[in-house]
Formats: sequence, structure tokens, C-alpha cells
Amino acid sequence: MYYYKFEDLKDYAVRYFTRWEITPEDALTAAEVLLSADMRGVDSHGLIRLHSYYGSRLEKGQIDPQAPLTVVRETGATLAMDANNGLGHPAGVKTMQMCIAKAREGGVAMATVRNSNHYGIAGYYAMLALPEDMIGISFTNSGPLVAPTHGRKALLGTNPIAVAMPAGRNQPYVLDMATSIVPIGRITVYQKNGKPIPAGWGIDREGNVTENPIEVLEGGALMPLGGVELMRGYKGYGLGLMVDIFSGILAGSGFGDQVYGADKPDTSRVGHFFAAIRIDAFRDPVEFKADMDTLIELLKNSPKAAGEERIFIHGEKEFERAERAAIEGVPLSNVTVGALKTAGEQDGVPFDLVPVKID
Amino acid sequence: MYYYKFEDLKDYAVRYFTRWEITPEDALTAAEVLLSADMRGVDSHGLIRLHSYYGSRLEKGQIDPQAPLTVVRETGATLAMDANNGLGHPAGVKTMQMCIAKAREGGVAMATVRNSNHYGIAGYYAMLALPEDMIGISFTNSGPLVAPTHGRKALLGTNPIAVAMPAGRNQPYVLDMATSIVPIGRITVYQKNGKPIPAGWGIDREGNVTENPIEVLEGGALMPLGGVELMRGYKGYGLGLMVDIFSGILAGSGFGDQVYGADKPDTSRVGHFFAAIRIDAFRDPVEFKADMDTLIELLKNSPKAAGEERIFIHGEKEFERAERAAIEGVPLSNVTVGALKTAGEQDGVPFDLVPVKID
Repeated sequence: MYYYKFEDLKDYAVRYFTRWEITPEDALTAAEVLLSADMRGVDSHGLIRLHSYYGSRLEKGQIDPQAPLTVVRETGATLAMDANNGLGHPAGVKTMQMCIAKAREGGVAMATVRNSNHYGIAGYYAMLALPEDMIGISFTNSGPLVAPTHGRKALLGTNPIAVAMPAGRNQPYVLDMATSIVPIGRITVYQKNGKPIPAGWGIDREGNVTENPIEVLEGGALMPLGGVELMRGYKGYGLGLMVDIFSGILAGSGFGDQVYGADKPDTSRVGHFFAAIRIDAFRDPVEFKADMDTLIELLKNSPKAAGEERIFIHGEKEFERAERAAIEGVPLSNVTVGALKTAGEQDGVPFDLVPVKID
Repeated sequence: MYYYKFEDLKDYAVRYFTRWEITPEDALTAAEVLLSADMRGVDSHGLIRLHSYYGSRLEKGQIDPQAPLTVVRETGATLAMDANNGLGHPAGVKTMQMCIAKAREGGVAMATVRNSNHYGIAGYYAMLALPEDMIGISFTNSGPLVAPTHGRKALLGTNPIAVAMPAGRNQPYVLDMATSIVPIGRITVYQKNGKPIPAGWGIDREGNVTENPIEVLEGGALMPLGGVELMRGYKGYGLGLMVDIFSGILAGSGFGDQVYGADKPDTSRVGHFFAAIRIDAFRDPVEFKADMDTLIELLKNSPKAAGEERIFIHGEKEFERAERAAIEGVPLSNVTVGALKTAGEQDGVPFDLVPVKID
């Protein structure tokens, strides 16, 4: 692992985005969202994607660097936005901030974004509500990778659900989960290592559960959370579908196989959904947080299963990693550093940062 | 199976509830919610529970039949209610109706209920939003049956998530799912039949996965959706925890092991959470429903996995069962009829209805 100063990486990512004519303000937002993934240990969604998800698409004109974020419909508590094929991160952050402002007035607010692009980790946007003593919610759809139960064609994205809720002396609860069992990148790792995947993560082109990662990647599909029908995989399928309806259909954006669809090579048509809920609309936030601590500690201090030493609350591991990264530097794998060097060279923004530590 | 006229069963359930001094209006609401479960094939949540969940608790004074439903906090878009230990169904229906009325004004609304009781199927309340061209959401917590990942003590309920969204020519999407893999009643069925349960549904008192249903029932726990860690069961645990925070903590009700807790034998302290979202706050409902049809048909008409003949949308099977029940009569198993006869006798409301058909 290579460890870098947060500020160095942020400056680099800003330079990278502005090279593609993203405004400095939007570049800073995108850099912060991507870096928060690397800080929190969700490295699949971090800087490694600078070129593959963003630079390469900006280069081909598949993302509009100067697209305005416009209001489609608005009420006191709702907001329907259009990202006009701009970068997903600034569209997401600005919309969530507007949603929070509306919730500040009216107690709750919801917002959608249509015609956006991949916005990084869903949890980032949900967490923006935390300092306001609000609950934050963030969904997004994504390109089709998951087959419906009884089906064999990938028609739904890994469509994540993120919910952030503040606690008192404990870290907040931050759920940030794909509605598939694993992301596609996890299958790729097994394929690269020549190892079989656990039975239940994916299906082949006939719809049979397979342990061969290549069969999942070539014409197969990921399985929804729950897996096979006996284990109630149709619930995970239902959650993925719910996210697509909120983020795609309610937003008036792409949905199903229209997102990153083969017939629409030029735009992603990704949609997002956000909500902000003021806790004091329902009860005293101090009491809420005290109860959160009670529940968190009840769970964490409960008896462990045989062979287990620790029970986690959602987000807890990621907060610990972020705290460590703030001290030691942001860890990037040699794969990520390699990708940044190659892309930086090619895109005219050489990745020439000096790590503060290598181990 | 015994088939009864809907009106006959409704009249009976109303007589049963009013016998316990529930008002006729509330009795009718409770009867309709329970019967909707029997109509939709969710018979575990239907009339079979008249005595065990409601009558027996009303008899012991553990549910207050005359409790007022009171407002704790209110804004234009939010509502925090207190059921004051009254029946869950009327508290749920009235609160969801108030939530819908607020959404009609402001676009979206959310509501909580504290100090309630078991409210039947979560989907019933979410579906109240459908005729209004709204999306409906309903969560409730329940007594502890599910252990956290790495734990072995049941601390969370099967905490269901229900979301209803209207479609056009197709039936609406109605997700109504426990956040455990299976409900506890499913384990009991295997135990009664002396059959092993599929590995992954439950754990024994040491926290090991067991195929012995007795070990789950006696000191063990249900597993959250996803199952073991390798299959990402911590996501199901996270969803169950989310429902407990919305329904229990945000509502200011019981949560974790305080719901039906052994130390609180007299009140359930169940909490609920509801939301209503006006579709036209975001886009034209006609366009929304057309897209719903496109997505539903894309999924349903997609290639089937080997050996499968049909892909379902959530709620579809239940709508078909309800349509059949409207024609043939509401089907009750001989177990349910037996339970109703025994309880009716004991509680002074003999179950003497004549079935329209037996098969």
C-alpha cells in the first residue's frame, strides 16, 4: 500500500477533473466524494475510477463537463432536478444540500436527479444530513448487472441503498449497501486470481448458479441479496427494483436496461433519489441519540457467535479506517497507483505525488 | 381449505373485536387489515391471530381497547403519534390516512406511531397510498427474533419493509418483506413436520448455523436476509436495524429487546413508520405509470432461468390470490378454522359461519 496526504490527492484529482473542463468548484466536489471512498476503505469506488468512469467518458463527450443542474419541478418539500448529463458528484451534492435546506424549513424533503452519471458512494450523500441532526437517504441506479429471480438476463443495477442516522457517543449508523450480494468487481477479483466464487453470488447465461467467475462475467449475472429463491433472493431483487423506481422512474431518468444501455452509448441516464428528515420533527434529537447509543451498545455488547469476537454497526469499520487514514495518510493499493500513473500520463495530468509511507 | 364470504368473515371479526370493547369503527378497520392478509395469501398474518395476538392480550389488559390516538408533534409534512397502547391496525390506518392528507398538501409526508401493537401486514398501509397516485411506505418493529451478524442473541424483530408504487395496465409494485430470511412461523412448520430446515435460515444458541428447527426455536435466532457473512447477511441485519430506528427510536417507542420484552410483559411498545409521496411532485403520474409498465414488462418478458417459467413482480402473486378469493371466497386452512372455533368458544363469540365451499 502507498499512503498519500489527503490534500495532495485532492489537489491531484481537482487538476485531473479541471483538465476536462470541469469547473474548479465541481472538480473539488467530485474529488472529495471519490477520496471519501478511499478514506473509508471502499477503494473500488475511489480514485481508481478517475479515468475509467470519468476521464474516459469526458474525453468522448459522454459526460458534459459544463452541464447546468436545473430544476424540473419544485414544491416546499420536493425537488426534481435534471443534471443534463453532467458529472454525478456535484449534481448529487448540490441536490442533497437543497434537500437538506428544504427539510430545515418543513421537517422532511425528498429530491430526485435525472440524466446524471455515476456519483460514487451512495453513503456520502446520506451522511451530509448528519451534522444537521437529520436522517439522510440516498439511492442511485446503475448499469444492468443483476437478473430478476427466475430470470437470467441482467436488467437491474447493483442499485445501492444508503441511510445515515446520527448517534450520541457512538459513531452514526451508516448503511451503504448494494442490493446485489456482491459488486461485479468482487467477481473480477476471483477471476483474476483464478479462484472459484462462492456458490450463490452469480449465475451463468442459462440462469444456473455457478462457481466459475468467467461464466458470471460473460453473459451471466449477479444475484440479488438473499441469492436463490429458497434463501429469499426475491427480496433483494425487490429492493433493487425499488431503488430503480425511485432513482430511475420517479426521477424521469433511465431505468432497467436503459441505464448505460448498449443502445444509448453516449449518455448514462443514471438517476438518483435523496431524502432528508429532521429528527426534531418527531422527537428531541438528544433523546433520539441517547436511544441510538442504547441500541448500538445493546447490539455490540451482546453475546458473540462461536468463533466471533466483535459485532459491528453499519459504517463502524469505515469510520475506523477513515480515522486511521487521517493520521497515516490515504492508502492506495499498487493497482490504484498503477492505474493513476497510466491514466495520468495518457490524459496529460501526470500522477507524480510522493507517498508519505509505503508498506 | 374452507372458503367463506368476505362479508361473513368481516362481520365475525367485527363481533370478535367489539366483544373486547373495541369501538365498531376500530373493529372494522382491524377486521379489514386481517382479512386482507387472508385474501392475499399471507394467512400467517390473518384471522388465525384473532385470539393469540389480539383477544388474549385484550383479555389480560395488555392492549387498551379504548386508547385514544394522540398527536405528539406535528409540522406541515410530519406527524408523531402516540397509540397509547391501543390496537395497532386503527392506529396505523388513521396515521397513514393523515400522512396521505399531508402529502396531498405538501408533496411528501412522514409519520411515526409510538406505543402501538402488532398491526398485521405492513403492505396494507403502504397500499393505502395507491389510489391517490402516491407511493406509500410502511415499516414496523416487532419482538426480538433476529440476531445481529457475529452475534447469537435475538435482539431485532423481523422488522418488515413495505413499499407500494402504482403502475398503469399492470398491478402495482408492492414489496412487503420481513428483513429476516423467513418468519419464525416458517421454522415452526418444519419443527411440527419433523423436517430439517435449509442451512442458513437460523442459528442455534451458540450462533452456529443449524438445520434443526428446535435449536432455532429454543434459544437460537433467525438469520437476517442474506444469511451468513459470506452471503452478506450483514445487509439484512442493517435493514432490520434501519426499520427499528425508524419505527422504534424515531417514533420514541420501544426498540431492540424492549419490544414485547420479558421485562415489559404488559405492553408491546411496538412502533410504526409511514411515508406518502405524491408522484406528481416529481413528474406526470401518467408518464410514471407508463414507465412502470415498461419496466415491469421488461422484467417479466425477459428470458427465464433454466427450469423456470415465470418471473414475478412483487405483490403480483398476492393480487392474483386476492382476485381469486373475491370470486371463490376467502380461503382459510383447517388449522385456521380450528383456531377460530376454539378461540370463539372460549371468548364467547362462537365461530359458526357456513363456508361457501370446502376442498
